[in-house]
Amino acid sequence: MPSGQFAVSTSAHMEFVDITTQLQQAIDDSGVSDGLLVVYNPHTTAGITINEGADPAVQSDLIGVFARIIPEDYPYKHREGNSPSHMMTTLTGSSATVFIENGRIRLGTWQRIFFCEYDGPRSRKVWWKILKG
Amino acid sequence: MPSGQFAVSTSAHMEFVDITTQLQQAIDDSGVSDGLLVVYNPHTTAGITINEGADPAVQSDLIGVFARIIPEDYPYKHREGNSPSHMMTTLTGSSATVFIENGRIRLGTWQRIFFCEYDGPRSRKVWWKILKG
Amino acid sequence: MPSGQFAVSTSAHMEFVDITTQLQQAIDDSGVSDGLLVVYNPHTTAGITINEGADPAVQSDLIGVFARIIPEDYPYKHREGNSPSHMMTTLTGSSATVFIENGRIRLGTWQRIFFCEYDGPRSRKVWWKILKG
Repeated sequence: MPSGQFAVSTSAHMEFVDITTQLQQAIDDSGVSDGLLVVYNPHTTAGITINEGADPAVQSDLIGVFARIIPEDYPYKHREGNSPSHMMTTLTGSSATVFIENGRIRLGTWQRIFFCEYDGPRSRKVWWKILKG
Repeated sequence: MPSGQFAVSTSAHMEFVDITTQLQQAIDDSGVSDGLLVVYNPHTTAGITINEGADPAVQSDLIGVFARIIPEDYPYKHREGNSPSHMMTTLTGSSATVFIENGRIRLGTWQRIFFCEYDGPRSRKVWWKILKG
Repeated sequence: MPSGQFAVSTSAHMEFVDITTQLQQAIDDSGVSDGLLVVYNPHTTAGITINEGADPAVQSDLIGVFARIIPEDYPYKHREGNSPSHMMTTLTGSSATVFIENGRIRLGTWQRIFFCEYDGPRSRKVWWKILKG
């Protein structure tokens, strides 16, 4: 099962980084033409989501709504002050599974795969595995 | 890896459509008796969830709570006016993975698999892949 | 495809139970050294998440924020009174996919895998499957 990882460097407290190109490169390198790609985020204040990539306003709207619906004034017990970030991780999920067909990630017309930074800026990793099919 | 897709036609702005029967049909057609089924939504204002199918009130309650917790009055930058729908997509997730045993999708007693429409009514697609195991 | 299940007994209405040790045991018993582990929750008022395991305060903060953002005063139609629990299930997701390398679940430094009880206390099940790779 081909697998690997790559680094993502984030530059804001909250940021969605389009990682589709790096993931396509991983598939290209593997030589796999059909199967599944599993994308995994190993951090507890980040996530993986699939959403619109054409208009960057969608990503900033998602970040804005996350910041609004997760309260800052809750009496959090976790001392690091980043409990809202942990909550966003659980709401987003830590992985995504997408299809590989003819050597390409098969996404919907407007879809891109994003690494979601919820407690940056930081140096992060993305792990991936490919199942041949 | 057997794969395919089918159409889902939605009739409301927000609607949960039970797609379990179509997915079971896909497994029947594939002849696979044990493995995994991956269900994938290629749209950025829709999702896939697994929840209770016995009482339709659960689905309408989920829709109602989504509409309540995602603000309508936020200063969204995305001009299409459907940023709340994109947010629901990220909160729900774009795929589900379920087990196949003895030729059947193995779900919990009350579970059904739903296509979640967040910006309908529209003509949608559901993609699937089956891993033999 | 090695598969199995184990019981989880919860003791509160909402509770996150770390099931990483039971899942590692399943991998040990399977003898699989590399591949994927899919963890599945068959209940409609529970979920599976991956989040920080080092500080139990993170888990109690997640539970507290869930209880705060999902309204109790909404005019729910589902008569069992647990519609907020169903909503938490859809927000959390019903499964997780993690990597197996060298016979071990490969998690990030702070990650653990949790069964999320949203309508307990109850006797629950967790299902799993392992894909060799």
